[in-house]
This record gives sequence, structure tokens and C-alpha cells, in this order.
Amino acid sequence: MPSSPSSTSGGRAGPTISTIAAEVGVSVPTVSKVLNGRSDVAPETRARIEEALQRSGYQRRRSQPQGTSPPLIDLVFHEIGSAWAMEIVRGVEEAASRAGVGVVLSTLGGRHSPEQGWMDRVLARRPVGVILVLSTLDPTQRHQLESRSIPFVVVDTDGETPADVATVGSNNWHGGLSATRHLLQLGHRRVAMASGPVDVLCSRARVDGFGSAHDELGVPVDPTLVRYENFTMEGGYRHGRALLTREDRPTAVFAGSDMQALGVLRAARELGLRVPEDLSLVGYDDLPLSAWVDPPLTTVHQPLHAMAATATRMVLEPSPTLGASLRRVDLATDLVVRSSTAPPPS
Amino acid sequence: MPSSPSSTSGGRAGPTISTIAAEVGVSVPTVSKVLNGRSDVAPETRARIEEALQRSGYQRRRSQPQGTSPPLIDLVFHEIGSAWAMEIVRGVEEAASRAGVGVVLSTLGGRHSPEQGWMDRVLARRPVGVILVLSTLDPTQRHQLESRSIPFVVVDTDGETPADVATVGSNNWHGGLSATRHLLQLGHRRVAMASGPVDVLCSRARVDGFGSAHDELGVPVDPTLVRYENFTMEGGYRHGRALLTREDRPTAVFAGSDMQALGVLRAARELGLRVPEDLSLVGYDDLPLSAWVDPPLTTVHQPLHAMAATATRMVLEPSPTLGASLRRVDLATDLVVRSSTAPPPS
Repeated sequence: MPSSPSSTSGGRAGPTISTIAAEVGVSVPTVSKVLNGRSDVAPETRARIEEALQRSGYQRRRSQPQGTSPPLIDLVFHEIGSAWAMEIVRGVEEAASRAGVGVVLSTLGGRHSPEQGWMDRVLARRPVGVILVLSTLDPTQRHQLESRSIPFVVVDTDGETPADVATVGSNNWHGGLSATRHLLQLGHRRVAMASGPVDVLCSRARVDGFGSAHDELGVPVDPTLVRYENFTMEGGYRHGRALLTREDRPTAVFAGSDMQALGVLRAARELGLRVPEDLSLVGYDDLPLSAWVDPPLTTVHQPLHAMAATATRMVLEPSPTLGASLRRVDLATDLVVRSSTAPPPS
Repeated sequence: MPSSPSSTSGGRAGPTISTIAAEVGVSVPTVSKVLNGRSDVAPETRARIEEALQRSGYQRRRSQPQGTSPPLIDLVFHEIGSAWAMEIVRGVEEAASRAGVGVVLSTLGGRHSPEQGWMDRVLARRPVGVILVLSTLDPTQRHQLESRSIPFVVVDTDGETPADVATVGSNNWHGGLSATRHLLQLGHRRVAMASGPVDVLCSRARVDGFGSAHDELGVPVDPTLVRYENFTMEGGYRHGRALLTREDRPTAVFAGSDMQALGVLRAARELGLRVPEDLSLVGYDDLPLSAWVDPPLTTVHQPLHAMAATATRMVLEPSPTLGASLRRVDLATDLVVRSSTAPPPS
């Protein structure tokens, strides 16, 4: 049986499975079943046990890999389907594989927060850690992992995470700043921001960097040139049609992703605009593809592989004593200048 | 304990863990450990037990999902890193998730056959099935899965698989035929085949389809126009440079993948050749991207998502009574005509 009696770490006297069982008025095996994500406990009883676990601050000792079952990490995407996600999968799989740890991949079908059915399966698997990409847990779910001593890390948060949640991201604000600076320094004065969704935190940071670069050089931002769409080629195409059919169209577009940049490129071509002669274009992510399209994209390199490897190390070697600042890491972004940017048409 | 005494399926008397243990002269738990991929058995003893398992035709009853651990499928790529692999990951994850089954993703770092360390971890996980993509098992590994009653399916085989191995592929020969027919019917008479690797079976099937289309229309194939490279953009670029710098360059290129087609496109641009005016180009796979590049690619649609879903169903609902013909499935391919093909320059 994988369950084991437990006390809080550090050896202090604290709640145990027995004290929880006594408090709720159920048997020890029933508490154990709930800890292990088993479904054969009545919902009302489960809820009472979860509540008692949370109230008491119960924490199970960290799982040891069981003799018969190799350790697993759960890797969760809100959705996959782009080369962006693939870069993260590669980074996690390589780092986990070196440690002899398997990776269970799941997706939330576009939802940004997992359902309880997913959480039950995670608890029953007893992974050594959970990595969430562009998705978050609600407070109950967080507590469910914490009480089982399953560490989790959020990669590239889509929103504010509480200060005690470990995160790995990249410096989106600086990425936005450096891309926009590059365009302004080339002489562009009407630069559009073809951003990702407004409700995803990284988009807002990039838009702020875009604004700061304008402030720095004393160029006013035209707020009607800042648009929000999803990160896909289709989203980029909508950006491009909306921005480039204007009479006062911008001479440069900074896109929220390389995929969006491809959509903008399509719109520009349909309208007979040459890149970079008539329109400069900057992407974001530096996917392998971006060097191969025509023209090769100037883009902001996001270190997706390193972000994934860092997140994997953080769940495999959690340091409870590490300060919060070391559990919230942003890796650096760099501007990669290729052939899609040039001075504005004179 | 997950191990259980067993007999061959169908209730006939046959080898059991006890008879194997007696034959080899070890204890029953030792045989059980080997069946479960545990590493704490001496290599020499392990080898003798595996040999006895194979010789006797021992077969454990199919694993039932254990009470404490939700079922898993192992999905194995020889390598990931392209949108091609992502399409398959999506298809497997969606189908498995609907069945409440988790997906463990691993890669072989470019090798086409897994190492024993990988196999030990799979045996210890006791997955409900294994899906291999562009990779194969050696006979010992096959027997290791068979003796544990773990079904496995090979997606898009890279080589000949024995007749009793379940496979899901697509009709590569027909894909090659229809792409080449399209080019010949447009009037091209010097068509190059910028193929994938010669040692991957799907490449050879496409090259044969290319040849058959030529035969059908009475056009001779110039064998110097048939080249082999890996499936990447870099491989395609090498194809493009080699083919398009010739004095007697082809007027059309049929590439082994959409990624290769991007590389050919880059080479054509560098040489000042317009697509499709000076050069027609056909890709393979119909990745989402292929509709968005410039020009949108004419390509062969490979039903990667449906192939992945079919493979997942085959391991989740294995039918021992199914004839071999129903366990070797090829799904249809279709030519998608977009803007990268046109009649040859006159």
C-alpha cells in the first residue's frame, strides 16, 4: 500500500492521518484513500476530509519513488498544438529523462485551470512534481498538492500567482522594450503592437515594455495601434488586416508571437506590402521556424528550453529553505535581428 | 503488490510464475520482480528468467488498472521537435484523455530503437499499452512486452515490422503518386524528388509512388534528380542547393516533408527563383503551418491526428481475435492544392 502514516516535516508534533480521521469521525484508511486520490469515498466525506486536512495544515512526507513504479512528473498544458509548446515538452523531457523520471503529458483543452477529475488522477499517480504551463491551480487544488508534499512550478504564468507559488518565466517586459527600441531606433514613429490576449500576464508585460521604449525616446504611443488577439496565425492575420488597411497604417508591427507574425505577414502580402521595405515586422519566441520563413524574422528569443529545464530541476530538487525570490525565476530574453526589419519608407 | 500469479489466457494449463521459478531454480518473487521491471535482480539471473519466459511462451494476464494508480499509455518518439510530432502527441493525448488514461511521453534522442533502461521503466510502470512512433523494438523487447500482455502499436514504421506487429500508417505510396501526377499533369517533365532518409520505409514508398506516376504518363525518371536527406528544414535546404544550382535544374520539386519544402523554398529564393513561376514545389504532411507560408504550399495531407487516435484505440481495446490485416492499418492521404504549383515556365 503506498499510503503511510505521516507527520509534518521537521519532526514537530502535528496532525497525523489518525488525528484527522478522529476529527472527521472516519477510519484511517478512508483518510488515506482521499490522500491518494481514490474515487471510492463519498463526495461529502471527501470534502470534509479535505477541509480538515487544509484546516490542520497536515502535510504528508514527500513521496519516495515506490519500489515497483518509476517516478513521474506531471506536465500540464492549457493546450498544445504549436511549436512553442513542443520546445517546452522537449526541455522537460530531456531534463526528466536524465534523472530517470517519466513525464506524463496532459492538456486542459484550452481551459486555464484543471478540473477535479484531472487532479484526482494526479493524486493517484503520486508524481514527484507537477509542472503547469500557462495554467494555474485554484487555492483548493494548490492545497491538495501541498498536503501531499507534491511540489509544483508554473511556467510562463498567464496571471498573477500568489507569492509563494514557484514560477519560471522570462523577462517579457524587457523583450517588449528591446523589440520596440529596435524599431524606434530604425526611425519608425508609427509602431503597432499586435499583442497576445489581454488577460495573459506576459502580453501585458510586453505591452508595457513597448510603452516604456516609446517614453524613453519621447515618441507618443497611439493607443489605437495596440491590439489584442490570441497567439495563433489566425490571430495575427486579424491583427494584420485591422492595422494595415487603415489610412494611417503603421510602418512597423511588433507581434506577440512568431505565429502571429506569420499571420501579419500574410495580411501584408495580400495588401501588396513588402516586408521589410514597406513594413517592418518583429516576432516573439524565436521558434526554430522563424529563421526559415521569408523574410527570416527579427524576433525576441525566449529561452523556452532553458525555462523548461529550470522548472524540471525545481520540482525534482525542491529546496524548502529557498527564499521566495529564488523560487520565482525569470530568464533573460534577447532580440535576434534578421531580415524583417529596416528603416521606414522615406 | 501488483504482481499476480498467472496462467496463459484462455484458461489452458500453461507455464506459471511457479513453473518458471522452478525451471530456473529461483524463487517466485524473483520471477515476479523481473516481470515488473525491477532492477534488484542480478543481470545473469534476469537473463535466465527472460529466456525461460520466452522459451515457455509464458503470458501474464493483461494488467488491470490498479486501485491506487490510474492507467497509463507509454508514447515513444525517436525524437520530437517538429510540428509533425506535435500533431501525433495531440491525437494520442485527446484519445487517451477521453478514456481516463494518462500519457507518458518519452524520446529516444534520435535512436530508432529503445535502450533496455527505457524498457525497464516501462515494465515497472505496467502501462496498458505502448505506442512507438518512427521507432521499433528488437525481438527481445517485443517479447518482454508480449509476456507481460502489454499491447503495442507502431505508428508510421521506419522499417519493415514483422507481420504480427500492429501498425498504423498512411498510404505513402499513394501520396507520392498523387503529388507527382499533379506535377506531371501541369506539364512538368523534369521533376525532382527531394526525399526523406533512404532508410525510412515511408520515404521509399513515396519515391516508388513518384516513379509509378512517371511510368503511368510515360515520362522517364532522371535518377540523379532523386535525393535523400533528413526531414528537417536544413535537409530541405541541402536538397534545394544541390538541385537548383544544376544547369539542367528541375522545374518542379516534390519534397519529403513540409519542413523540407521550407528549406527548398529558402534555397530557391537565394537563387532568385520564384515559386511557382520558376519552380513548382509540393510538400508532404499538411502541417497547419503549410497554409500560412508564402506561397501557401501544395502538399500531401497526412492524417496524423487520426493515425494517433487509431493507434490509441488499438492499444486501449486490443482484439486478440482480430485478423492481422485489421491490425495493420494505413489511412488515406490526399493532395491539397494551394499556390506553390503551376505549369512550368514556357
